Amino acid sequence: MFMIDCGEGTQLQLRRSSIPFTGLRAVFISHPHGDHCFGLLGLISTFGLLGRIRPLSVYAPAEMEELLKKELDYYCNSYDYEVEFHPVDTTQEKVIYEDRSLTVETIPLQHRVPCCGYLFREKPLQPHIRREMIDFYNIPLSQINNIKAGADYTLPDGTVVPNDKLTRPADEPRSYAYCSDTKYMPELAQKVKGVTLLYHESTYADDKTDGATKYFHSTARQAATVARDAEVKKLMIGHFSSRYSDENLLLNQAKEVFPNTILADEQKIVEVE
Amino acid sequence: MFMIDCGEGTQLQLRRSSIPFTGLRAVFISHPHGDHCFGLLGLISTFGLLGRIRPLSVYAPAEMEELLKKELDYYCNSYDYEVEFHPVDTTQEKVIYEDRSLTVETIPLQHRVPCCGYLFREKPLQPHIRREMIDFYNIPLSQINNIKAGADYTLPDGTVVPNDKLTRPADEPRSYAYCSDTKYMPELAQKVKGVTLLYHESTYADDKTDGATKYFHSTARQAATVARDAEVKKLMIGHFSSRYSDENLLLNQAKEVFPNTILADEQKIVEVE
Repeated sequence: MFMIDCGEGTQLQLRRSSIPFTGLRAVFISHPHGDHCFGLLGLISTFGLLGRIRPLSVYAPAEMEELLKKELDYYCNSYDYEVEFHPVDTTQEKVIYEDRSLTVETIPLQHRVPCCGYLFREKPLQPHIRREMIDFYNIPLSQINNIKAGADYTLPDGTVVPNDKLTRPADEPRSYAYCSDTKYMPELAQKVKGVTLLYHESTYADDKTDGATKYFHSTARQAATVARDAEVKKLMIGHFSSRYSDENLLLNQAKEVFPNTILADEQKIVEVE
Repeated sequence: MFMIDCGEGTQLQLRRSSIPFTGLRAVFISHPHGDHCFGLLGLISTFGLLGRIRPLSVYAPAEMEELLKKELDYYCNSYDYEVEFHPVDTTQEKVIYEDRSLTVETIPLQHRVPCCGYLFREKPLQPHIRREMIDFYNIPLSQINNIKAGADYTLPDGTVVPNDKLTRPADEPRSYAYCSDTKYMPELAQKVKGVTLLYHESTYADDKTDGATKYFHSTARQAATVARDAEVKKLMIGHFSSRYSDENLLLNQAKEVFPNTILADEQKIVEVE
């Protein structure tokens, strides 16, 4: 389990959800503004008070390291687990995390402070085994991994059963790109090309297009333009200015450009599929 | 308006209440544990984003100054108002704040880190004017302040009307003592003698009296003992361990010692009277 950004009150929202604290492996921070990181110390403290042992990785812009380490030294010096800080260069596209099933890349963004998004890519998946064919040919269990890896199977009488008779194609690997906060970046479409789910900030509606540029934020229409140009499967917009009491205004402007758009909301669960 | 301690999410709770942000003049922090101070940066940031101009005073243990200043420099350097830090010596009883209507004194407490409570004392109030007597003697408005200050009034015919015919005694000044976090301190009763309202932490019930001592916290019964020995008017207990699903257990144990006890709760409004 991963977390992206950690505003004030995140630990409370996490407690209200059904997500167990213990599963969290790493937190990725996009930039040092309070609504994206002021919940981090509280989260780390609570983990410590709950007796966490497993290390927690924190990926964040390199310039946050000095202060965060001082804060951890002062407030979180008596816990039984390590917080491993990984400084992130927000100006580079780079794989900063990898495990058996996925990679995470940075996405340089343009905001008022050093800021990057994060792109989660599932690694290529194995093909599905056609169970009925395995049974039909009486193929031993020991051969399943070879077949998943692409091997044909030779029967005792020498007949070769080709791999595509024994498998169905693998699912397409999924991907999730998180882009907040940023001004409109047309070149972002190339970076997030074809992702399964794109989260893109939409602070403003059309009425504040100039304000969006000035404050390095995006409008819903601009977010949808990135989604359309990147041919993503689905767009989720969020980070709405409190000036909009009805967020459907933003949703509708986005949908004019990219119909498969949804609104982010607190505690909302979205499948990446 | 004053705030005492500022845990994570305080700004959210403040927004949910009917209390206007702008009225807050000073925040008093008891000690550098997250549940008492992790909301401070977020509160200060939000004030800045809302365009606050009036300075905000922060009173906190002196040892918090260095880190807090670094945090303010990093996260809150672009706002239009000043945060004035007042380092507090948590080991001394001392008046650290005074204005026209009240004083605030520190109350040294015993916790795992430097910690103090705060005692708010209303200044002596003026007597009430007996309006019907003012009318009866036809006393001009210009004399009201003198009479409130204790003067008699001389009628045009030379008759002296004594002050106690023109006034009713002033209300007793109110006082509020906030004591969290601390182990049981019998000597605290002397310090908070006779206060109108005492808030005293009650982390544990009787079952964890040993744990209370070990972790420098108090039981509900110990809080009530301080209240009884101090002859306070009312006791409010709070800071309950999450191990107690029913806080009435704590309330009842406190009431056995000091009947006029109430439970603190989120968003609860308590009159000091």
